[in-house]
Amino acid sequence: MSLRSLGVALHCRCIQTESRRIGSLIEKIELIRPNSHCDETEIIATLKKTGEQVCLDPKAPWLKRVIAAIMSNTKP
Amino acid sequence: MSLRSLGVALHCRCIQTESRRIGSLIEKIELIRPNSHCDETEIIATLKKTGEQVCLDPKAPWLKRVIAAIMSNTKP
Repeated sequence: MSLRSLGVALHCRCIQTESRRIGSLIEKIELIRPNSHCDETEIIATLKKTGEQVCLDPKAPWLKRVIAAIMSNTKP
Repeated sequence: MSLRSLGVALHCRCIQTESRRIGSLIEKIELIRPNSHCDETEIIATLKKTGEQVCLDPKAPWLKRVIAAIMSNTKP
């Protein structure tokens, strides 16, 4: 579990990012801009079967393809 | 408020989408793939100041630019 406890939202939620290409496992992606709690962009995916939340690297090329696929409603 | 009540998550959350370009007001964007609750891709933005949730059109060109800006951590 690479997310800090959600109970205390006074800092970034992501400690490390998942490097494996998990596009097909993803049900939802949250793109979170830097804000008062965290000064970094955070990308958090929610997985289909488990509902687990996983942090992703905003610069990962495969993530850009997954987002484009979601936006155009096609399989990645 | 263009979201159905979150209490009953048995169908799509979006009824209509916001057409104005509100990129600079957005703190977070959720990209939700079609799933057992809803057979459409849904894009839901959370606004900075109010925390209001607003549905966006996945095909809106300005949205693609906002997402790219968030991913590259630059202002839209």
